[in-house]
Amino acid sequence: ARIVTLPGDGVGPEVTDAAVAVLKAVAERSGQTFEFESHLIGGCAIDATGEPLPAATLEACKKADAVFLGAVGGPKWSDPQAKVRPEQGLLALRAALGVFANLRPLQVHPALASLSPLKNEKLKNVDVLFVRELTGGAYFGAKTRTIDTATDECKYTVAEVERVTRRAFELARERKQHVTSVDKANVLETSRLWRSTVTRIAAEYPDVTLEHQLVDSMAMLLLTQPSRYDVVVTENLFGDILTDEAAALAGSLGLLPSASLGEGKVGLYEPIHGSAPDIAGQGVANPLGAILSAALLLRHSLGLEIEATTIEAAVAHVLTNGPHSRDIGGKASTSEMRDAVIAALD
Amino acid sequence: ARIVTLPGDGVGPEVTDAAVAVLKAVAERSGQTFEFESHLIGGCAIDATGEPLPAATLEACKKADAVFLGAVGGPKWSDPQAKVRPEQGLLALRAALGVFANLRPLQVHPALASLSPLKNEKLKNVDVLFVRELTGGAYFGAKTRTIDTATDECKYTVAEVERVTRRAFELARERKQHVTSVDKANVLETSRLWRSTVTRIAAEYPDVTLEHQLVDSMAMLLLTQPSRYDVVVTENLFGDILTDEAAALAGSLGLLPSASLGEGKVGLYEPIHGSAPDIAGQGVANPLGAILSAALLLRHSLGLEIEATTIEAAVAHVLTNGPHSRDIGGKASTSEMRDAVIAALD
Ligand SMILES: CC(C)[C@H](C(=O)O)[C@@H](O)C(=O)O
Ligand SMILES: CC(C)[C@H](C(=O)O)[C@@H](O)C(=O)O
Repeated sequence: ARIVTLPGDGVGPEVTDAAVAVLKAVAERSGQTFEFESHLIGGCAIDATGEPLPAATLEACKKADAVFLGAVGGPKWSDPQAKVRPEQGLLALRAALGVFANLRPLQVHPALASLSPLKNEKLKNVDVLFVRELTGGAYFGAKTRTIDTATDECKYTVAEVERVTRRAFELARERKQHVTSVDKANVLETSRLWRSTVTRIAAEYPDVTLEHQLVDSMAMLLLTQPSRYDVVVTENLFGDILTDEAAALAGSLGLLPSASLGEGKVGLYEPIHGSAPDIAGQGVANPLGAILSAALLLRHSLGLEIEATTIEAAVAHVLTNGPHSRDIGGKASTSEMRDAVIAALD
Repeated sequence: ARIVTLPGDGVGPEVTDAAVAVLKAVAERSGQTFEFESHLIGGCAIDATGEPLPAATLEACKKADAVFLGAVGGPKWSDPQAKVRPEQGLLALRAALGVFANLRPLQVHPALASLSPLKNEKLKNVDVLFVRELTGGAYFGAKTRTIDTATDECKYTVAEVERVTRRAFELARERKQHVTSVDKANVLETSRLWRSTVTRIAAEYPDVTLEHQLVDSMAMLLLTQPSRYDVVVTENLFGDILTDEAAALAGSLGLLPSASLGEGKVGLYEPIHGSAPDIAGQGVANPLGAILSAALLLRHSLGLEIEATTIEAAVAHVLTNGPHSRDIGGKASTSEMRDAVIAALD
């Protein structure tokens, strides 16, 4: 299998290295062959080529079986007036690969409950899978700017809502058969289209229960009743906000993975955390989010369920027994974390 | 002073009655005269007149010194396909009164810390004032709908951002001289206009510190470091989501007030909670959010600071000593809560 890696900026290269090392260790043990090819994206790509998503990168990603991304962005490139921004590379890549469904699983490992801002009793049985629409909405709508006005258009087509809804319901079938759809249908036209489309598609899945929530209520319910939710499907910007809110419950962003999937097999896998410029280059970033994203890559793009589960079990072992990196209350370096996961594979 | 009350739907009339009773008790004690005039808005207005904001209501509000609103909406009127919705009345009223700055203070009373989903140590010193832009953004932008597409336009002018920013900085001067501006400037054009305008206006307030946060990070930081924030200013939809998230920290929505202010004196005051159809008509709704909104009315529209503080102290007394309504772990009815606050005025 051909895996393109896009280490990107900040701690991106450090956590990508760790994830690749784990994938190689898994390949060795299971007799798989993975070919890795590294390309530029984000700030480092702007520095080298002037473009946040160089053509060579995009071409390689399109031919790959899966794409692994570290992180993009950093203070060096974040002048709001700048014409070219690292994030544009990531958004363009998501669009070009057609990865419309961004999966963000959230579980709270018991060993980390003490790090969560939430009370322990709230965290029991939290197991949520967010399915965030990733290639539509205000992220990709028309924008205008004059001296004294700016606009962003949020747009959704029925077809865009249908496909991400189906993905959410299919995932719910394999879980607890419950889907919560989040919108702002009391105010937004796109949300009314969202709600009526989700309701119609839900009828194709009589075995799965659907409920609707308004995004403001959901922001509250994620804190007061987090264990009530199974699959949560929502549009791009609401998903951006709600998944970061939910991520705070896990105690650290450092260990949360994501998978972005389209109709085809090629998926885009990245940890939820950003480029973390404050700790970049120090070898202390937590690589578990990246390593768990690699597990999702094996599961969703390569069909290697056993290997994916092996990695997840190894990460759980490390969370239970240590070592722990700084963000989760320990002192271990990125490479110590990586080595501990590899040791736990056997 | 002329106060228009808009009891609205669900528990709206119950909590409005309680707030009016407290205002009358305060008037008696301080020698003020308040004239109350009640009008229809929301679902009950649709039932009576076909319109969510009848002309008579709007006219009365425009002539008033202040407007007090209970809540609007309910299952009876929430078919997403409906042409007329209760919320439209509220949105039209906000626009017509020009109340562009929605103030939502958040403090966590020690007696209620056990009800919060957040760990107690996180709640220490939490004292945030949200200033949500209330008459712009996707709430009021152009909407389109065809069989297979929907759009919402989010639009901001520099002037709209300037005025709400100035309000936020002026409020910060009276508090801890810190403003956090929240946007999504790495993706949205309106957010880039927002950020550059806020940055420019901040220079007029050298005594106040400004920081910018992205909305997704802020959704996380409100949980991990809530005591870091003083005044938080943001656009309409982000404010809707973040203030509900923050409200969850307080342990109950039932006791959070809000004030919506424009350039003039007339303000719109409402508890944060909705119409709560599940408990409407039972006399058990918590009236403290409404009563605290009445205190904000005295402060911001009538300039009665002492009377406002007296109400706030009485509510704090009731929170400390009881009685408590159901939502905050007790059994007291709406009228028992109201009477306890009135008794504590002396
Ligand atoms: C970097 C940014 C453009 C991105 C987004 O908003 O989608 C990030 O916050 C994310 O959630 O992956
Ligand atoms: C009822 C609804 C339109 C309203 C809003 O979204 O502004 C409410 O959620 C609020 O926050 O006051």
